[in-house]
Amino acid sequence: QDDAGWLPSLITDTPEEGFQLAITLSRTGVTETQGNMDVLTTQREHYSREPDDLIAASQVIAIHFQTVAAANDYWR
Amino acid sequence: QDDAGWLPSLITDTPEEGFQLAITLSRTGVTETQGNMDVLTTQREHYSREPDDLIAASQVIAIHFQTVAAANDYWR
Amino acid sequence: QDDAGWLPSLITDTPEEGFQLAITLSRTGVTETQGNMDVLTTQREHYSREPDDLIAASQVIAIHFQTVAAANDYWR
Amino acid sequence: QDDAGWLPSLITDTPEEGFQLAITLSRTGVTETQGNMDVLTTQREHYSREPDDLIAASQVIAIHFQTVAAANDYWR
Amino acid sequence: QDDAGWLPSLITDTPEEGFQLAITLSRTGVTETQGNMDVLTTQREHYSREPDDLIAASQVIAIHFQTVAAANDYWR
Amino acid sequence: QDDAGWLPSLITDTPEEGFQLAITLSRTGVTETQGNMDVLTTQREHYSREPDDLIAASQVIAIHFQTVAAANDYWR
Repeated sequence: QDDAGWLPSLITDTPEEGFQLAITLSRTGVTETQGNMDVLTTQREHYSREPDDLIAASQVIAIHFQTVAAANDYWR
Repeated sequence: QDDAGWLPSLITDTPEEGFQLAITLSRTGVTETQGNMDVLTTQREHYSREPDDLIAASQVIAIHFQTVAAANDYWR
Repeated sequence: QDDAGWLPSLITDTPEEGFQLAITLSRTGVTETQGNMDVLTTQREHYSREPDDLIAASQVIAIHFQTVAAANDYWR
Repeated sequence: QDDAGWLPSLITDTPEEGFQLAITLSRTGVTETQGNMDVLTTQREHYSREPDDLIAASQVIAIHFQTVAAANDYWR
Repeated sequence: QDDAGWLPSLITDTPEEGFQLAITLSRTGVTETQGNMDVLTTQREHYSREPDDLIAASQVIAIHFQTVAAANDYWR
Repeated sequence: QDDAGWLPSLITDTPEEGFQLAITLSRTGVTETQGNMDVLTTQREHYSREPDDLIAASQVIAIHFQTVAAANDYWR
């Protein structure tokens, strides 16, 4: 990580980059709570086959995407 | 996918197209987490018969639709 | 469905019509995921007796109502 | 119900009335899905002793209160 | 309770008071649904040891805090 | 805690500090409900290995981050 840190800005060029940033924000919310990557990798095997976990993960991305989209004035 | 990517813009002509975009955003949130289509297809058999999963999926669409509607100034 | 589709506009005359539209949006989020009405009808028997499903369904309506209310500038 | 229906307006005199309206909106979201009051009364016995249902119900009220508060410009 | 009721205003002097108000709003959402304090006290023993209930309670506070923060123009 | 309390302001210099503040707000929502740190530490062992709890925790952070980002005008 360079000195600007992992989250220098919420501004992105395109909605697609904005969606990727929302995914990064969602995953960072998990790794900030559980920093042990081994635990996360084993869990990923499990939760990525559970529909309700996948839907829940998509919802966290949706909330962050709402924030990033507003930050970028919806790339209008 | 053409070079504009899967999400060139949040702007749509009608609320109905906006609702379809919200569904696409919700499903992409799932496929970005679980890329294996076989797993997703087997899961779909299961979760599409579970009321709480269907309600949860509808909620993710509702959050994305809120974002898309604001982006389009509610098609006023 | 006439040619304007099922969602021609988010604008309604009254808050009550806005609430009905929010219910329609919530239910469409379900039928877009599970198109088989027989499955939905059998499920409805089940989930409409489950408090947590009823609360979850009310929450999806609440999110859509927030969108519809903003679209109508809160019918002020 | 008089001819103005159950939801003539989102405007209230005080935040407390606004909170009551949010409760009404949340409950209507339930009764619109499950109209049978006997079922609802038996369920209420059950869910009103379940912490996660009580928290979930409080959350639906929180979302509606956010809408009603914005409609009233936060009673500023 | 004085005649101004339990919720005279959403305006607070500091973000910290705003957070406390969000907690009050969340808890009132519960007591409005379950008024029996004995039931609530016994439940509290249980849910305050359940991670998912604690996270869910924190989420309701987060939604109310979003409303209170907007009401106070983020104490800028 | 100095006399300004634990939440003197929502304003931060960078999005990354804003994300940290959102984590603090989320955790305070838990400690305000369950003040016993021993209980919390034992729970943390458990929930930090549960995918749905980690996703739920990330969601609370997402809601608070939405508030903090708006407070900081998205650090534009």
